[in-house]
Amino acid sequence: MNYSELVNKIKSKKNFLCVGLDPDPKNIKDDKILDFNKKIIDETYDLCIAYKPNIAFYEHLGIKGWCILEKTLDYIGKDHFTIADAKRADIGNTSKFYAKTFFETYNFDSITLNPFMGKDSIDPFMEWENKWSIILALTSNDGSSDFQTPDLYKSVLQKTKDWGTKENTMYVVGATKSDFLQEVRSIIPDHFMLIPGVGAQGGSLDEVCQNAMTKDCGLIINSSRSIIFAEKPRLEAQKLKNQMQIWIEKIML
Amino acid sequence: MNYSELVNKIKSKKNFLCVGLDPDPKNIKDDKILDFNKKIIDETYDLCIAYKPNIAFYEHLGIKGWCILEKTLDYIGKDHFTIADAKRADIGNTSKFYAKTFFETYNFDSITLNPFMGKDSIDPFMEWENKWSIILALTSNDGSSDFQTPDLYKSVLQKTKDWGTKENTMYVVGATKSDFLQEVRSIIPDHFMLIPGVGAQGGSLDEVCQNAMTKDCGLIINSSRSIIFAEKPRLEAQKLKNQMQIWIEKIML
Repeated sequence: MNYSELVNKIKSKKNFLCVGLDPDPKNIKDDKILDFNKKIIDETYDLCIAYKPNIAFYEHLGIKGWCILEKTLDYIGKDHFTIADAKRADIGNTSKFYAKTFFETYNFDSITLNPFMGKDSIDPFMEWENKWSIILALTSNDGSSDFQTPDLYKSVLQKTKDWGTKENTMYVVGATKSDFLQEVRSIIPDHFMLIPGVGAQGGSLDEVCQNAMTKDCGLIINSSRSIIFAEKPRLEAQKLKNQMQIWIEKIML
Repeated sequence: MNYSELVNKIKSKKNFLCVGLDPDPKNIKDDKILDFNKKIIDETYDLCIAYKPNIAFYEHLGIKGWCILEKTLDYIGKDHFTIADAKRADIGNTSKFYAKTFFETYNFDSITLNPFMGKDSIDPFMEWENKWSIILALTSNDGSSDFQTPDLYKSVLQKTKDWGTKENTMYVVGATKSDFLQEVRSIIPDHFMLIPGVGAQGGSLDEVCQNAMTKDCGLIINSSRSIIFAEKPRLEAQKLKNQMQIWIEKIML
């Protein structure tokens, strides 16, 4: 899915919601994961524009997990933007094969990447047409402040934005970091941000939109646990979608 | 394998060589990978103490790749230290499942980890008994200087060394960075370092030993391409082993 297709999808579906498909074994038995994912997809299909399976929740099941991932992707189909939340990257010759894994073997639209190893670890992902690199800039977890100092995350944004374009690069910026969102937006005025941390982690959707939404939207907001493990997943997705629609009508239309 | 078992193995086998099992499809057809790995293992079994498959070279093949990885690990057995070169890490609740993947599902002794996301992304790996976290500090690739400034890699070493102990934590430090090795060693006087970059990437084994070897060795030196794709893999491994034996006799015995 390319940039203008993504923007058009957001406009026509009036939301920029991504549903994180993270089947935590605390909540679902292994042999129920595919059914669980299908049910979540059924309930949210018209209320979101993207799905993001976190690969760890599949990988730990071995081959069974990769089969479930493949069947989940088949079930999603090609109407939604798909994100492999894999946080990969390695030296160039190796990253090439991670890119192949997620862009070809599993045919995701995008993958989350860890920038620590620098340009040659990211470049191989950017060589694929109509595929996206989603680079960690400022994550939403407690540990993010250990190394993601302002110096580091600004350097990540400033350097990497010239490695690709707004048409193939996005950034992970946690919703729990809304103090920093304006500053991040000033460094990358046109790029999409993938925002985790709304919901279970406590970030505010309105604050995120206030500080970082653009005329092309520029945001994909992810919610995992607070939708998929809710008593009524559709209701939770609908609430977020309604809130997003107001912002879309205000800023984009 | 615990710390003293590892040190004893190095003393008795008189080397600290790790062979990287990175079956690049440029050199080997998919259906020949397992045979290729077995041949390399046969030729190097008595000349190395560790094997390190880089997961990207298996993952891109889908389920077939994971089967090959599993059979390769079975073939290695438990006499060698095994390293999943996976460069994983994610928020805590997710990292827990990456730890399960490599420490339980595939039963590796250790995994390489990317520290960018901070403490809660590393902690879940450290909770496993007799398993090792090998944290990227200063990598050997060209892009390493993009973000791994002296401030950052020193901060990684200084903070993370208190999250675990020398008995469950190692560090990746590239052999191509031998100017920095003394300084790294001064920050982590007792930890093992996993050193890639000797061989194909141009690092010098003697310089590494000169600057960073300890009484307990403190080094695992990895070589991938320059052994596995050599015309005579055993000869290349033997050369490195001989060079290592001199250093072991000089420093450890």
